Amino acid sequence: MKLSEITSVLDCDFQGKDREIIGINTLKDAKEHEVSFVSNSKYVKDLETTKAAAVIISENLADKLPVTCIPLVTKNPYWSMAVLSKYFAPPIEDNSLGEPKIGRNCQVSTKAEIAKGAIIGENCIILAHAYIGTEAEIGNNTTIYPSVTVYRDCKIGNDCIIHANTVVGSDGFGFATNEKGEHKKIYQNGNVMIEDDVEIGSNVSIDRAVFGSTVIKKGSRIDNLVQIGHNCEVGEYSVLVSQVGLAGSTKLGRNVVMGGQAAAAGHLEIASFSTFAARSGITRNIKEPGKTYAGFPLMDHRLWLKLQAKLARLIK
Amino acid sequence: MKLSEITSVLDCDFQGKDREIIGINTLKDAKEHEVSFVSNSKYVKDLETTKAAAVIISENLADKLPVTCIPLVTKNPYWSMAVLSKYFAPPIEDNSLGEPKIGRNCQVSTKAEIAKGAIIGENCIILAHAYIGTEAEIGNNTTIYPSVTVYRDCKIGNDCIIHANTVVGSDGFGFATNEKGEHKKIYQNGNVMIEDDVEIGSNVSIDRAVFGSTVIKKGSRIDNLVQIGHNCEVGEYSVLVSQVGLAGSTKLGRNVVMGGQAAAAGHLEIASFSTFAARSGITRNIKEPGKTYAGFPLMDHRLWLKLQAKLARLIK
Amino acid sequence: MKLSEITSVLDCDFQGKDREIIGINTLKDAKEHEVSFVSNSKYVKDLETTKAAAVIISENLADKLPVTCIPLVTKNPYWSMAVLSKYFAPPIEDNSLGEPKIGRNCQVSTKAEIAKGAIIGENCIILAHAYIGTEAEIGNNTTIYPSVTVYRDCKIGNDCIIHANTVVGSDGFGFATNEKGEHKKIYQNGNVMIEDDVEIGSNVSIDRAVFGSTVIKKGSRIDNLVQIGHNCEVGEYSVLVSQVGLAGSTKLGRNVVMGGQAAAAGHLEIASFSTFAARSGITRNIKEPGKTYAGFPLMDHRLWLKLQAKLARLIK
Repeated sequence: MKLSEITSVLDCDFQGKDREIIGINTLKDAKEHEVSFVSNSKYVKDLETTKAAAVIISENLADKLPVTCIPLVTKNPYWSMAVLSKYFAPPIEDNSLGEPKIGRNCQVSTKAEIAKGAIIGENCIILAHAYIGTEAEIGNNTTIYPSVTVYRDCKIGNDCIIHANTVVGSDGFGFATNEKGEHKKIYQNGNVMIEDDVEIGSNVSIDRAVFGSTVIKKGSRIDNLVQIGHNCEVGEYSVLVSQVGLAGSTKLGRNVVMGGQAAAAGHLEIASFSTFAARSGITRNIKEPGKTYAGFPLMDHRLWLKLQAKLARLIK
Repeated sequence: MKLSEITSVLDCDFQGKDREIIGINTLKDAKEHEVSFVSNSKYVKDLETTKAAAVIISENLADKLPVTCIPLVTKNPYWSMAVLSKYFAPPIEDNSLGEPKIGRNCQVSTKAEIAKGAIIGENCIILAHAYIGTEAEIGNNTTIYPSVTVYRDCKIGNDCIIHANTVVGSDGFGFATNEKGEHKKIYQNGNVMIEDDVEIGSNVSIDRAVFGSTVIKKGSRIDNLVQIGHNCEVGEYSVLVSQVGLAGSTKLGRNVVMGGQAAAAGHLEIASFSTFAARSGITRNIKEPGKTYAGFPLMDHRLWLKLQAKLARLIK
Repeated sequence: MKLSEITSVLDCDFQGKDREIIGINTLKDAKEHEVSFVSNSKYVKDLETTKAAAVIISENLADKLPVTCIPLVTKNPYWSMAVLSKYFAPPIEDNSLGEPKIGRNCQVSTKAEIAKGAIIGENCIILAHAYIGTEAEIGNNTTIYPSVTVYRDCKIGNDCIIHANTVVGSDGFGFATNEKGEHKKIYQNGNVMIEDDVEIGSNVSIDRAVFGSTVIKKGSRIDNLVQIGHNCEVGEYSVLVSQVGLAGSTKLGRNVVMGGQAAAAGHLEIASFSTFAARSGITRNIKEPGKTYAGFPLMDHRLWLKLQAKLARLIK
């Protein structure tokens, strides 16, 4: 998409030479043929060093950009980015691609759907009513149970087991809101990457990233009915018990354990070997590894026990 | 079904002329060819003004009915209504209906099932393993991802996106219980209506109404693994984050925001522009619009913060 | 599998005559052609009376076995059991079995998958994209909605209704962990048994047992998005409201009611006619029947109300 077409879609001006733009990305990750945006004061610091060709920006920040970077000034940059995201969304299925490639010794049900451009490794079992999307990739020795949906471009490693009716790669919960309270979808143009030796239960939802990847690392274990938001990272050998929820962009270290119905807010970093009791509610970063927590608000597990003892005394 | 057949099924008597009855409904909404019932003292006030042809009722309330309305006296009116509901349940699929109608420029997978009598608008994408039930209707430009199930009679508007493995129109959780503790299903003969520009995540359950419709209004956004009970109403542009639960008959105004794992009890009314922090537990009506709440029991968000500060001091 | 092959797989020795072993089981339930294991001090008491042919055991406990029982000494018996469990896992689908048997007057979609060796009773409705696994059995008059997945060997009774996208028999969340924090899957070789007159909502996950059966008893009602762990037992006429979670091996008596989002830890026994308010968190056995509870930690419902009143006073 030409930069001039973008400014036409966003109804804004630009100075400089027209050029081809191939995607949208964060200020930090954008490359020279991508546009970026700034809508959160937290990211203003990234303006000076961005490599983006152009940045969607409010008027008062435009002068913070490097001289080589073109400001695209709009009133609501986040809304503008949402509008633009649609233009970079690939088709849900792409029939111009070749037939899917399926490795040796696979057992693929005739009632499964393997979309064009998908690649399946060797010794896989793919049961009826599974859906493997366009350009999705599955490694070797992986089992996909019935009615699992793997959206386009998602990658699943070797020796994985995905239980029935789980969804890998549905759109992250992203939208901009205008002053009338209306919402505009932010197309989620990233993917999900699941590494080797991961087992995922039934009825799990793992959202694709808005940019980049949602990542489930090697050896992790995810129980039924778990929610993993866009751009999360689940560390190696982590254990998420049933009905756990992770909001977007939260990153768990390795061997993190979250008990049933525990949840974490978005944009957090959780140190390795942290353990959270059932129903813990995590709303802050955890920097020190290897501790045990409980409660909402979250506290040291021993403090939580002490608090419950105090409360029990209140009603005696 | 004749009124005389109904009294035979319910093993009760009636006085007056026999007539054709076409459905069951609430006292308030029943029309002249429908029967109703009363089982909850909250609705006794509606007895005097009901337009129902007949009402299933306990002996002690029968004299409160208008003279034109026929009392059907049984010992457990709720149980009797459950017994009767089965007789008004339409078949799950109706093969006597015509072939489904599919609008121009749709992309419908041969591995999707579109039942008889369904109507699909223009420019829709319906992916493999989706199920669109008998007499269901989908508007224009709507995308239905794999393994979405839309039960019979449900309506989805224009420009909607329904993510994989979501269920629209499963039966509400309705049953009567007798003195032995046994349950009798109340057939859920209503439907779900989803208005335009609604996006719904993956693995969501939206139950059909027992009578009338469960309604998801224009522009609302529903994240993954959300539960919406029968006869709920989600207002325009409302936002329900992952793992939210709404019990039956609760009505949200417009632009209501519920954080992750928040929940509301049944039969509540929530004012527009209310915001509920993650894990809020709503058990009362919210009349004043635009406030922010947290906690369970629910309280003003600032009070909740204050309470947590007090509790933190308890364990110092 | 020969005992000598087992010891070769587990890299341990054994004394005595070789013999054929047909499965793994608990110390208590193992029969003379099965092996067992001990990894939890809670079960040491069962060592003396076990009928298992051999027991995977740590060195310090080996002398507690009956003389007729062969000790298989390993450093991490639980890990060894996990390693061995794979060898007793039946294939996911078994094409050597005969065509499925389908009773009179059934309506089975051509887009449903009924695996080899499955048995369907009379008057059943099985809708598109449902999956009935190898050797699964469905009784009479049962309705299976679209995209329901019933894993191999699971049994569903008469007069049941299973709503869309529900999963019956996915693997329980079982694994051993070694000193490096790596996990080894414990194959779940049991099944799920659902008795007569059970209705289950949409997007529910019911895990199969590791040994034996997960059981849902007659007349119970399970709402949407509920999690039932491996080896649980849900008593007759029990009611589990939406988003409830049961961890593994918990047993509910009859007519237990759990409100929305309530949850129980594993290995508990809950007396009949117990009622738990929404979001209750049950972490102990309930011995006295017929009481009402709330809160997390769990307390008598009236105490919970009293506690909330006290807390409200704290912030006045």
